[in-house]
Amino acid sequence: MTQSSLTPLAERRRIRTGEFAGQTAGLAPGYVQGNLAILPADYANEFLRFCQANPKPCPLLAVSEPGDPMLPSLGEDIDIRTDVPRYRVFRDGQLDDEPADIRSLWRDDLVTFLIGCSFSFEEALIADGIVLRHVRMNRNVAMYKTSIPCRSAGRFHGTMVVSMRPLKAADAIRAVQITSRFPNVHGAPVHLGDPGLIGIRDISQPEFGEAVPIEAGELPVFWACGVTPQVAIANAKPPLAITHLGGHMLITDLVNSRLAML
Amino acid sequence: MTQSSLTPLAERRRIRTGEFAGQTAGLAPGYVQGNLAILPADYANEFLRFCQANPKPCPLLAVSEPGDPMLPSLGEDIDIRTDVPRYRVFRDGQLDDEPADIRSLWRDDLVTFLIGCSFSFEEALIADGIVLRHVRMNRNVAMYKTSIPCRSAGRFHGTMVVSMRPLKAADAIRAVQITSRFPNVHGAPVHLGDPGLIGIRDISQPEFGEAVPIEAGELPVFWACGVTPQVAIANAKPPLAITHLGGHMLITDLVNSRLAML
Repeated sequence: MTQSSLTPLAERRRIRTGEFAGQTAGLAPGYVQGNLAILPADYANEFLRFCQANPKPCPLLAVSEPGDPMLPSLGEDIDIRTDVPRYRVFRDGQLDDEPADIRSLWRDDLVTFLIGCSFSFEEALIADGIVLRHVRMNRNVAMYKTSIPCRSAGRFHGTMVVSMRPLKAADAIRAVQITSRFPNVHGAPVHLGDPGLIGIRDISQPEFGEAVPIEAGELPVFWACGVTPQVAIANAKPPLAITHLGGHMLITDLVNSRLAML
Repeated sequence: MTQSSLTPLAERRRIRTGEFAGQTAGLAPGYVQGNLAILPADYANEFLRFCQANPKPCPLLAVSEPGDPMLPSLGEDIDIRTDVPRYRVFRDGQLDDEPADIRSLWRDDLVTFLIGCSFSFEEALIADGIVLRHVRMNRNVAMYKTSIPCRSAGRFHGTMVVSMRPLKAADAIRAVQITSRFPNVHGAPVHLGDPGLIGIRDISQPEFGEAVPIEAGELPVFWACGVTPQVAIANAKPPLAITHLGGHMLITDLVNSRLAML
């Protein structure tokens, strides 16, 4: 994980100017990063209901005013059109482009959603002395489609995507305690142990991210994942939807530890 | 589980008079019951250090003044010589008797320890809608000796005894959350999943209590158990030690839900 000592605002400036266009893991340690979804108002209302109904995979950190690209509740001078390193643009559910900014796509009816990300709770786990193998191996976390249904809302529907971290039982128990304090960034695990019970057929073949080995004496521990809303958006097939490219998150001015509810 | 609507004091009166001499599960629902250990002062100081060093299996609810049979911090007019339905008396680590009261054994140097019991957190689990199979089957919980070492203190030493409850993964995660709130009654589990990792060779053969089946899709979840101090006492071989007979607990005036730290 790259480490830097720049403030979130300074990191966003490097991103806005194009000086930095990579993955954001390790940037501005201690600060909340979030998953992005931008939808036309017509779809945004249904998507908001989808997030409300599925808070574990879709914990909302902020929702913008329609047409307003600024997110003042998340930090100083955040312009969502320029402050994410790389975007994905979907039209009718199909990937159309991966631009470095979306100024030319902005419209009066677009609503921005920022959804909590596991980076926040991973920082708390690491601070507690728990070793996360994908971080140690410098890989993206392994993510899997499951058979766990989300509650549908209008045109948004789908099953839950989960991230998996292999842990010894004592660390898994501690990880439940730690992540339970962070409901706004996916909270407690949704499953642990047998992957087949949640419809994962081959743990060595994640649908997103990169596989990591599960060692003897470890359990796979599964958390609801912020890729879930992207699947629901793909199913809803709005004429326009914009997300971040995996790993290329919005860095906010919110402090991770302040997301803890206790 | 037998249910009654008597107050803790009324239950202790029935026990003191000999009207009731059975197991206390289900009596005075909502109130804390505890594991008993009585030791001569000479050993009591070391045992207190043992409990302090091993709070998960030996969470102390109260320690008496030497020679004082009353436990005012636990409730009204509790006389530990008469208010437990049945006792076990050990001499030099060997079981000597199982009397209904210990008035004739009382001495000026005896110190009483009351140690938290899983009844308290089981009530919280059941109230949350989690089905506990041993309760449903009207059996004592299954308990196992493990290879998990306790910290030694003076002559007290041994490995941890654990209780096991089979749960589906989602219930196991919820059970970690709920029992974490109750550090004075064993707190969060110490292990889940593979019993062999904590030295349990045959899950169908508990050393204490009664076995329950583990169904498909369930994990065995293990909590530190109040039988652990009894094993440490057996190892220390004090000239005199008095405990309760399994399941025949002291019923206190403390409210279970008030043990929750949050």
